[in-house]
Amino acid sequence: MVVRPAVAALALVVLAAAGVRAQEPGPFPAPKAAPAIVTPGRTSADPPSDAIVLFDGKDLSRWRGKDGGAAKWTVRDGYVEVAPGRGDITTADKFGDVQLHIEWATPAVVKGEGQERGNSGVFLMDRYEVQVLDSYDNTTYFHGQAGSVYKQYAPLVNASRKPGEWQTYDIVFHAPRFDEQGKVIDRARVTVLHNGVLIQNNVEIYGLTYNDRPAIYIAHSPAEPLHLQDHGNPMRYRNIWIRRL
Amino acid sequence: MVVRPAVAALALVVLAAAGVRAQEPGPFPAPKAAPAIVTPGRTSADPPSDAIVLFDGKDLSRWRGKDGGAAKWTVRDGYVEVAPGRGDITTADKFGDVQLHIEWATPAVVKGEGQERGNSGVFLMDRYEVQVLDSYDNTTYFHGQAGSVYKQYAPLVNASRKPGEWQTYDIVFHAPRFDEQGKVIDRARVTVLHNGVLIQNNVEIYGLTYNDRPAIYIAHSPAEPLHLQDHGNPMRYRNIWIRRL
Amino acid sequence: MVVRPAVAALALVVLAAAGVRAQEPGPFPAPKAAPAIVTPGRTSADPPSDAIVLFDGKDLSRWRGKDGGAAKWTVRDGYVEVAPGRGDITTADKFGDVQLHIEWATPAVVKGEGQERGNSGVFLMDRYEVQVLDSYDNTTYFHGQAGSVYKQYAPLVNASRKPGEWQTYDIVFHAPRFDEQGKVIDRARVTVLHNGVLIQNNVEIYGLTYNDRPAIYIAHSPAEPLHLQDHGNPMRYRNIWIRRL
Amino acid sequence: MVVRPAVAALALVVLAAAGVRAQEPGPFPAPKAAPAIVTPGRTSADPPSDAIVLFDGKDLSRWRGKDGGAAKWTVRDGYVEVAPGRGDITTADKFGDVQLHIEWATPAVVKGEGQERGNSGVFLMDRYEVQVLDSYDNTTYFHGQAGSVYKQYAPLVNASRKPGEWQTYDIVFHAPRFDEQGKVIDRARVTVLHNGVLIQNNVEIYGLTYNDRPAIYIAHSPAEPLHLQDHGNPMRYRNIWIRRL
Repeated sequence: MVVRPAVAALALVVLAAAGVRAQEPGPFPAPKAAPAIVTPGRTSADPPSDAIVLFDGKDLSRWRGKDGGAAKWTVRDGYVEVAPGRGDITTADKFGDVQLHIEWATPAVVKGEGQERGNSGVFLMDRYEVQVLDSYDNTTYFHGQAGSVYKQYAPLVNASRKPGEWQTYDIVFHAPRFDEQGKVIDRARVTVLHNGVLIQNNVEIYGLTYNDRPAIYIAHSPAEPLHLQDHGNPMRYRNIWIRRL
Repeated sequence: MVVRPAVAALALVVLAAAGVRAQEPGPFPAPKAAPAIVTPGRTSADPPSDAIVLFDGKDLSRWRGKDGGAAKWTVRDGYVEVAPGRGDITTADKFGDVQLHIEWATPAVVKGEGQERGNSGVFLMDRYEVQVLDSYDNTTYFHGQAGSVYKQYAPLVNASRKPGEWQTYDIVFHAPRFDEQGKVIDRARVTVLHNGVLIQNNVEIYGLTYNDRPAIYIAHSPAEPLHLQDHGNPMRYRNIWIRRL
Repeated sequence: MVVRPAVAALALVVLAAAGVRAQEPGPFPAPKAAPAIVTPGRTSADPPSDAIVLFDGKDLSRWRGKDGGAAKWTVRDGYVEVAPGRGDITTADKFGDVQLHIEWATPAVVKGEGQERGNSGVFLMDRYEVQVLDSYDNTTYFHGQAGSVYKQYAPLVNASRKPGEWQTYDIVFHAPRFDEQGKVIDRARVTVLHNGVLIQNNVEIYGLTYNDRPAIYIAHSPAEPLHLQDHGNPMRYRNIWIRRL
Repeated sequence: MVVRPAVAALALVVLAAAGVRAQEPGPFPAPKAAPAIVTPGRTSADPPSDAIVLFDGKDLSRWRGKDGGAAKWTVRDGYVEVAPGRGDITTADKFGDVQLHIEWATPAVVKGEGQERGNSGVFLMDRYEVQVLDSYDNTTYFHGQAGSVYKQYAPLVNASRKPGEWQTYDIVFHAPRFDEQGKVIDRARVTVLHNGVLIQNNVEIYGLTYNDRPAIYIAHSPAEPLHLQDHGNPMRYRNIWIRRL
């Protein structure tokens, strides 16, 4: 806490002279609502008590596949692996502002180059992508490497682990807000820690990313599902939990 | 009103008509500079390769005590303990925008109530305090409990561990900017994860906190030291590392 | 990474794939509420139909003096003149966000130098001052000359007329917002045209100005009166009107 | 100006106690550069001494027509009239942040309805349109009436004068900024007074307006010409001046 100066009647002098009010308030009063108690996980990577555990290594019951049916990726040994060709998987629940923890590993046996190597993606609100890629000794356009906000922001640094090793993203996401006309009045923002290293620092997302024209916002609901991308590579995910903010 | 182009070649029509350019650009080109390669720590709590390790459990060589002399807190068993009465300790290095990891524990034997129990503080730029307190089953004003931006923002939730247990703060701090007159033109902001749980979400700091009057900004250098507070309790710290952003 | 659609039906492909919506919306739909009809004044300096005329050259019925009694400045020939020593005058009505038009003239016979020559002030919300001063061939500190946000922002240019000539301020003011704790969450901003020339361009006000310490915000009501300052000089005002925004 | 309180040594006490620095600064020091002296126009509608007069009622020498040739609208009696079918006219000079004064009149003889009646437009930076329309007793979509930021923002109020009468726009425009990749990092903003009445209050422009898809930003130069639209109606303009900010 801060030191306790004397000379408290100061403001009184000033403002009384100004004829404005008889007393200057002190510092901000305490908020009235107590912060909710949350039991943290055993480590910072483990889900705290208020998290929704989206995948605990056992089943995909909280996920849907193409056309809304069952999610058909492969679950084994505490992780889920992309089943190439079976399409993206999407949460049944919908989310707005969130804290997300997710772990992933690219194939230990390296195949392909650039965007063809260990590619997937974490799509917040079904749209805003934090890129997943094997970026260990693998060059691609910088705003397309692991940890980029795809085609918008390169990561601040490349904190990738080797192929086959488990990596983490800790993401804080601020959902965009739209007015009644569909105009964005508060843009999405995202902060990402990759393996504990800050790689996106509250960047303002430009909207949906396209490959052939500028990014734009198109209005959507305040809550949308999370989805993980099938980009044709047998990527693995585990320990996925999310907190509504 | 705007011209009414037909469907697809729209931009071409509009902009050619405006004599500006013949073609609408596609998405953002890639940035030219490659993100630096950083080797992450073994876990997200361990220092990555570009971090400055401020305390590794062995000595306080990077810290100074009162009057700039040696830092006289007690180092033992991989941690440093506040030596009550010996004053705050301050880094020799100075920092602006940073990512900071710091671990702390309050005394296992509980003594005192409210602000008198397990109190210390992490002062970014020597001024902007993230409160350290034993807030496990210990009530105080909410913007003074563990993880508060002291007297400004209560934490979003109380993610405290029990007395004596090691806890972590992962902090992303944006330093304020001042113009030549000393006016703040970009305020400090801070994001804090407490034991892996988001408790401060990019809040805008109001300036220096006082006990008897409103917070204000007073211009300072772009880099200032970090300091840890001696508030009279034998608090412990360990595994302190920082990255310049 | 993102899917690679071909040219025109792009959005359809992308978003259908995402299962979100079948079609990209066009431009923003029109808002549903018709803008209110306002009859402008005969010239841009005359009050439009929705303005509150605070002084029309005849009486001070909408103003109060010290202690809330009658405003005792001198009304003659369509203007009101500061009666030095009788104190500031304050509107009975209170205002938040406003557009304000006000005309003023400094004494034709020049007396004094710097801040002693033709000094007064327009205090928005009783606190935030746009300086009134004879700044024609009269040097003072630049953030204290005519059109400054007093002691905070110098005017962009000095668009002063000669002593004795009528001058205008057209002001757009955005009131600050405070949260329940009294913290400012949206700072005041002001735009000023002086004799038709832009001199303050949506600058963010730092709070109350003091002479011996930094500016600060102290929470107040969403609406506060306007006041004009008696700084000891026989300044004149006329044609004062205000619109709530 | 503000009152002068005593108790000046306060800060010294506070901060010395905090061990931070020996003295708290007072209020902001004055900026070092004197604001340039600008002679205002005879009235607020007349050009001040630092304005570029784009049209003074006599000739179109500062304007270009289609293909960069001479501007072929009709000049007579101190105004210029759109020559329907001859296309938009564009300034030879280019501008970024500006204050713009422009006067216009719709045909005294009313013809057509909605967007077909007295339609033209002021395009800042060749792209960002403040709509010109006969909106006196003429209904259209609200973000397409006089004073709208076309298809983005309806005016706050409808301050239109009758057909054939001269009307004014006083515009403060903040140009967008782009980064090296072409990403907008600071969006365009505009404030508009229509006949002296505030109708756009520092709104943030969403980019280029299209009729069939959302607005987007496409990077352009920091300075671009101003253009006036030929929308097929014999609209009149006069007294056009602009100031670089």
